[in-house]
Order: sequence, then structure tokens, then C-alpha cells
Amino acid sequence: MKKTYKAALLIIGNEILSGKVADQNLQFLAIELNEIGIRLTEVRVVLDIEQAIINAVLELHQNYDYVFTTGGIGATHDDITTKSIAKAFNRKLIINEKALEAVKNLYSNEDFDMPNNLNKARLRMAYIPENARLITNKITKVPGFAIENVYVMAGIPKIMHSMFESVKHELIGGKSMKSTKLRTKLKEEIFAIELTEIQNIYRDVEIGSYPITEENIHGTDIIISSTNLDKIEEAKNAVKEMLMKNEKSQRN
Amino acid sequence: MKKTYKAALLIIGNEILSGKVADQNLQFLAIELNEIGIRLTEVRVVLDIEQAIINAVLELHQNYDYVFTTGGIGATHDDITTKSIAKAFNRKLIINEKALEAVKNLYSNEDFDMPNNLNKARLRMAYIPENARLITNKITKVPGFAIENVYVMAGIPKIMHSMFESVKHELIGGKSMKSTKLRTKLKEEIFAIELTEIQNIYRDVEIGSYPITEENIHGTDIIISSTNLDKIEEAKNAVKEMLMKNEKSQRN
Repeated sequence: MKKTYKAALLIIGNEILSGKVADQNLQFLAIELNEIGIRLTEVRVVLDIEQAIINAVLELHQNYDYVFTTGGIGATHDDITTKSIAKAFNRKLIINEKALEAVKNLYSNEDFDMPNNLNKARLRMAYIPENARLITNKITKVPGFAIENVYVMAGIPKIMHSMFESVKHELIGGKSMKSTKLRTKLKEEIFAIELTEIQNIYRDVEIGSYPITEENIHGTDIIISSTNLDKIEEAKNAVKEMLMKNEKSQRN
Repeated sequence: MKKTYKAALLIIGNEILSGKVADQNLQFLAIELNEIGIRLTEVRVVLDIEQAIINAVLELHQNYDYVFTTGGIGATHDDITTKSIAKAFNRKLIINEKALEAVKNLYSNEDFDMPNNLNKARLRMAYIPENARLITNKITKVPGFAIENVYVMAGIPKIMHSMFESVKHELIGGKSMKSTKLRTKLKEEIFAIELTEIQNIYRDVEIGSYPITEENIHGTDIIISSTNLDKIEEAKNAVKEMLMKNEKSQRN
């Protein structure tokens, strides 16, 4: 049996857990990872607290092929991700020349004066754990970094997306999951037993049943997933036939 | 020092981790819990896998005052939350009379024929772990349940919201976090050092700095939070003054 590559996402930030900001990175990462055959298997969201970050990142690092973190790598006092992850992996924080150059360029085109103490704040973003690989981004140019299988990225969606683009080529995955959706006006309870029977026959596919939650539309979405398109097709035909039979019997 | 009440959310479902469905419950729960003085401190998202659910729910149950789970309590084969949580707490699954009545009523007003095997699927939703407390909902009337500090709720947002409404009164919290937001056109790096100094002086508030991610708007949102409105006001004045000074020096 082929290996299934698994990843975890660690979202770091008080703003997500207080409900002030809605995460926009989970869904993006799930879809992108699947395209390269890596399955997002767990997500955690923790506060900007050093020990919470360290515990979560080390546990995920051990349990998954890849770990991605988002949030907390900016210039202000509440950005403690870099420091916490350096500590988790026992790495010193040192000024990285490439990161420093990127930070300097951040301001080179701007025509305002810089306060004297800006140097220290700018420098903060140039500190990267020793021997980490840099993760570039096209938006601000200020990098994230990777240590072993842990990829530390920004929380701002467009920067996170650009960082993921830049590391995508180095990720090793298997086959991606394909899926197809069938929609019926029936409630899932009507055909639940029959759907279970189909799932028991077609064991190479994963059949999910989701009550529709859109306003004024009732019924169920059935999503059939597998790495094998032929297997999806076979199961889809069985589900379709079963649904048609039930829809017909409801009309009579 | 007053106790801070802490909660965790466990989101259960392949559909969230595959990116097919975006979670809509985290932000709702974060805001609702804060209103009653409970702080959402950790979130986990796991697949519909029994062992993953058991491990996560037991760990969160031990670490937090309250645990809320969403997803996986419907009628189909992929709904394994109830069974998994019963197992985690060593409880038998038994038919609950009130749940059974609710399930029966689900269909009483509908004029279609029921297939014979429907009974089994309907019954599935009437099985509740022994000695669990029921969590009612006004939408479908089919209940979730609570065991000790673990509240097991539906994943469909409007049902989840109704279930939360029905248990809210029994949750014990402390003071709710209040917050205020200041918006500046400056990048956070400009004032990061000064903001750190303010945070160091005003230790009773939590100051978060968030680059604005809206299209065509640049700058930073600064959010100041505390359970004490006076402390927020003091810190806010200090931040305001600092921002005005910097904005003025940028204009010159």
C-alpha cells in the first residue's frame, strides 16, 4: 500500500480565538495540499503564548509529515512565533543576511522619515533561527522560514499564499483525492441505511453525507472521494441509482 | 486573582479538513463564550476517525473548563461522533426516550411514505450515551448531549447556534473581555518599539497589532482588550498619542 502523506496546520493568534478575525488560511491550505497529494489531517488554533506554541508545534512535528504554521511573525511585541519555534527546536535566533536585506528594502521606496528606534523593530523581522531555510514571499519580501518539516508562515492570507507558492515545489506527496458531488432533495435519514450498505461495498471510496445548509434549499449533498477516478464512478452510479429509487418512492 | 474560565472547541469532520466546507462555528462560539466570560483558548479540527476524536476530546476535557464539539451527530455512517465520545467516557449507548420522540416527530408532519429500513436510521439519532444531559435545538428538535464538561453539538451552523443557546444558561464564566480598536495608516513596523513600551507599562490590557488585509487599505489595526474598561481607556489614550506623534512626523 502506498504511503499517505499527512500534514497539520497550526494557526497562531489571539485574534482568531477571540473571534475578531476569521481564519482564511485553512481552506486554502487544505485544497492546495490535496492537489499535491498531501492530506490535511489536523488543525490546531492556539493563543500567542510561548508554551502553547512550543507544545503544539513539537507534537505535530512528531505526528505528521509536514506542519505549517500561520501567524505571529510580524514586527510587534505580540508576534512571538519565531522566538517560540526557535526555542522548541533549540536554535539560536540570529540575524539572517537575506532577511535583513528584505527588511531594508521594505522601506527603500518610501519617502517618509524613519524614527530612530525603527531600526530595532525592523531588525526583529530579520532574526531567523540558525540553519533554518528561508521561505520567500512576493508581497512584502520579508521571509518566513522552515526547520525540518515545520513551515513557519505569515497569517495575512495573501502573504501566506505567496509563501506557500514558494515552498510547494519541495513538498513530496502521493496521489491527490478526487471527488464528486451528488445532490438530492431527500433528507439523509431517508437513505442512510442504504448509503451505509453502499459504503460497505465500495470500500475504496469515502462517502460523506451533508445536510444542505443553504437558505431555502433542503436536502443532502453526497460527496464521494478517492484517489481513483474509476472507483468514484462505480460508487457514484450505485448512489445515483439508490437515490433515484428513493426519490421515485417519495413521489408516489 | 480571579479564575479565568477557559474553553476548547473540537471541530469534527472530513469536509472541513478537505476544504470542501468552511467552518462557521469557531467565530460564533468565540464571541458567544466571551460574552459570558469564558475564553476560547484552543481549537482542534480532526477527521471522522474514532481514535482521533477520542484522543482529542479526552485531552481537551482534562485541560479546559468546557469543551464543545461540532459535527458528526447526524444519521449517516460517517457520523461517528456520538459513538466515539461514548467510548471515550466508557458509557453505553442507549435509546433515549426524549431523543426518540424528537426523531419520531421529525417525520410526523411529512406526507411521504417511509421506506421500511428508515426505522434503523432514525433510531441511530435516538441513541445517546447513558446518563448524558440532552442539548435541545429548535430547528430539528433532535438533541445533542453533554457528558461532564463536554458539549456535543451539530455541525450545521443554525442547529449548532440553537443548541448553544439552550445550554448557555448553565455555563459559568468570569468577566467578559471588552476591546476597542484604533486604526492607523502607518505600517506597524513604524511604531512597533513604542507599542511594546506601552504594552510593558499597561500590563492589565492585551494589545494586538494587525496589519490591515483589506484590498486597497493599508495600515494597522490596534486592538486593546481587557476585562476592565478603565484600563482599556488608559492604554487607548497612550496608544492614540503615540500614533498621532508618528503620523505627524511622517507627514513632515
